Amino acid sequence: MKLNIAVLPGDGIGPEVTKQAKKVLEAVAHQFNHTFIFKEALAGAVAIDKTGDPFPKETLDLCLNTDAVLFGAIGDPKYDNNPSAKVRPEQGLLKMRKDLGLFTNIRPVKAFEQLLDKSPLKENIIKGADLTIYRELTGGIYFGEKKISEDGKTASDLGEYSEYEIVRIAHAAFKAAQKRRKKVTLVDKANVLESSRLWRKVVTRIAKEYKDVELDYLFIDNAAMQMILNPTQFDVILTDNLFGDIISDEASVIGGSIGLLASASVGEKYAVFEPIHGSYPQATGKGIANPIASILSAAMLLEHFGLMEEAKLIHKAVDKSLELKISTPDILPDSKITTTKVGDFIADYI
Amino acid sequence: MKLNIAVLPGDGIGPEVTKQAKKVLEAVAHQFNHTFIFKEALAGAVAIDKTGDPFPKETLDLCLNTDAVLFGAIGDPKYDNNPSAKVRPEQGLLKMRKDLGLFTNIRPVKAFEQLLDKSPLKENIIKGADLTIYRELTGGIYFGEKKISEDGKTASDLGEYSEYEIVRIAHAAFKAAQKRRKKVTLVDKANVLESSRLWRKVVTRIAKEYKDVELDYLFIDNAAMQMILNPTQFDVILTDNLFGDIISDEASVIGGSIGLLASASVGEKYAVFEPIHGSYPQATGKGIANPIASILSAAMLLEHFGLMEEAKLIHKAVDKSLELKISTPDILPDSKITTTKVGDFIADYI
Ligand SMILES: CC(C)[C@H](C(=O)O)[C@@H](O)C(=O)O
Ligand SMILES: CC(C)[C@H](C(=O)O)[C@@H](O)C(=O)O
Repeated sequence: MKLNIAVLPGDGIGPEVTKQAKKVLEAVAHQFNHTFIFKEALAGAVAIDKTGDPFPKETLDLCLNTDAVLFGAIGDPKYDNNPSAKVRPEQGLLKMRKDLGLFTNIRPVKAFEQLLDKSPLKENIIKGADLTIYRELTGGIYFGEKKISEDGKTASDLGEYSEYEIVRIAHAAFKAAQKRRKKVTLVDKANVLESSRLWRKVVTRIAKEYKDVELDYLFIDNAAMQMILNPTQFDVILTDNLFGDIISDEASVIGGSIGLLASASVGEKYAVFEPIHGSYPQATGKGIANPIASILSAAMLLEHFGLMEEAKLIHKAVDKSLELKISTPDILPDSKITTTKVGDFIADYI
Repeated sequence: MKLNIAVLPGDGIGPEVTKQAKKVLEAVAHQFNHTFIFKEALAGAVAIDKTGDPFPKETLDLCLNTDAVLFGAIGDPKYDNNPSAKVRPEQGLLKMRKDLGLFTNIRPVKAFEQLLDKSPLKENIIKGADLTIYRELTGGIYFGEKKISEDGKTASDLGEYSEYEIVRIAHAAFKAAQKRRKKVTLVDKANVLESSRLWRKVVTRIAKEYKDVELDYLFIDNAAMQMILNPTQFDVILTDNLFGDIISDEASVIGGSIGLLASASVGEKYAVFEPIHGSYPQATGKGIANPIASILSAAMLLEHFGLMEEAKLIHKAVDKSLELKISTPDILPDSKITTTKVGDFIADYI
């Protein structure tokens, strides 16, 4: 298979980890006789520094003309505590999601057998946990109208959803559940929010088309608690943009490190694969960033194109690295093994 | 001291637990020679059933004419999956908060030494955790304009904050931190939301008036993760209505049971004391509901009126009950000890 892959390394540890994922994809291409053509482009704070725009037109054009995007991370602390910055790196990420129509964000979370003792949660709580979050990614309060009054004393964000936005991701979630343990949990705040009540109405209706799948409802506050009390109860979680952001970061503690979690953001036409961790600026350039999340994102990319065997091999290589403790310090304190070493091991294994 | 206390038992387990809290307050009154006069009123689903209104005018009038309100819980499953119900029990709770101007919700969370092994989190993670959440309670997306389009296909909620709403609770949080470990963590989503950026701006400015208090910032997604990875890092968490709802339920797992967590909701004039748990309909009438959250809410009520010694005695009695394992099944599986028994023990101890 021939694939054109855009690589947007972004900020912080983004470039370091993406480099390893690319290396692994190259190993796969070599091993299975595929042709993967990589082209790099700017996004995030680095793009602001060079062009004034966190998601420049050239980057968008590249993405529109490739089969898939491998994304690093975005964000720089110099913007975080500067509420009056006009341009922010995150706008680049949001613009990419919107412009490419990536409405479904898929975040699988699993308790790795080799790492059960790494989690802050007790082993008996997380053992066997295996869930996947379907987070709506191009709607809701992230993209609703934002206002700030003339005198700067009042600010607002509009959280809005339309039926079709809910319908399309709901189908994706139910289909995913059919291939898994056949349960969807809708997470919302329908006791307070009008938009959540629309989610409940629409999802309840769609559930009728999937008689083999059980539909469950949880308020986000309760879900945030249940995720810790009893994560094995979840199979597919379906939720909106904001709640999905929160619950997926929270769920990351189940795996023992956020450095292990990959995600896919897909729409009708385009798909982006990225670690769920951020740019982690404190770690930049130190060789301590865990490349596994990015490498597993590359595996999701392969799955997206039906290259199941290839993806499986990456998973096997990752498992092996964990087993042999070829790991960065986030999961192996005092480890001297670098980002590159982990990437090398996995690529060599393949 | 003479205090008029309105009691709103509400729905589900609300009446059972509130009864125990009242009993404990009566024991305190007797022991310390105070006069507490209790008057009951309707709120929640029971109020809808009897009057059509989840927070009837008589209830409001009673609250406006008492010194403090002891509140149970609100909510009934028959409304949860009925998105088209015109009146919902939660509206009563929200109306009460708004009408009484209860803009500061205070939710202390502590790892009880006696219960360290009950938490799903490892002992070394929670040991020593002692934090308190200052959640804004009368603004934000809970109370912003809600819209649903004519055809019912689009729904929205407006998340709005004004400077003065942030200012007043920020001062409360910094003052609380001064009496504690002198750290405030602002939790927001300033990389996406305009209203969060206003929070950051205003809180950063106010922090300058509290030179002895350190101010820290976390995005809500990261905070949801940090709460589990390292809860001892937190002292006072300051946040908006929605994020406060989520993070405080999540934080409840630290204590080993949500049945232990009390809260105070205070404004300029009025104050309401309530458990953070909900109406827990599955447990209603079974005698298994933990009354401690409600009893500790009563302790917060006493503290609010400067009755520190009295409040301390309640805490001591609660500690004793935990030590002697006079506990409901949420913290002592297979326990046959009922809600009433726990209340009796604590009242007798006093
Ligand atoms: C960086 C930020 C805007 C982003 C989000 O909130 O979506 C990130 O937290 C994520 O989850 O991908
Ligand atoms: C019942 C519900 C409306 C309420 C809220 O969201 O505020 C509850 O979860 C709480 O935290 O007191």
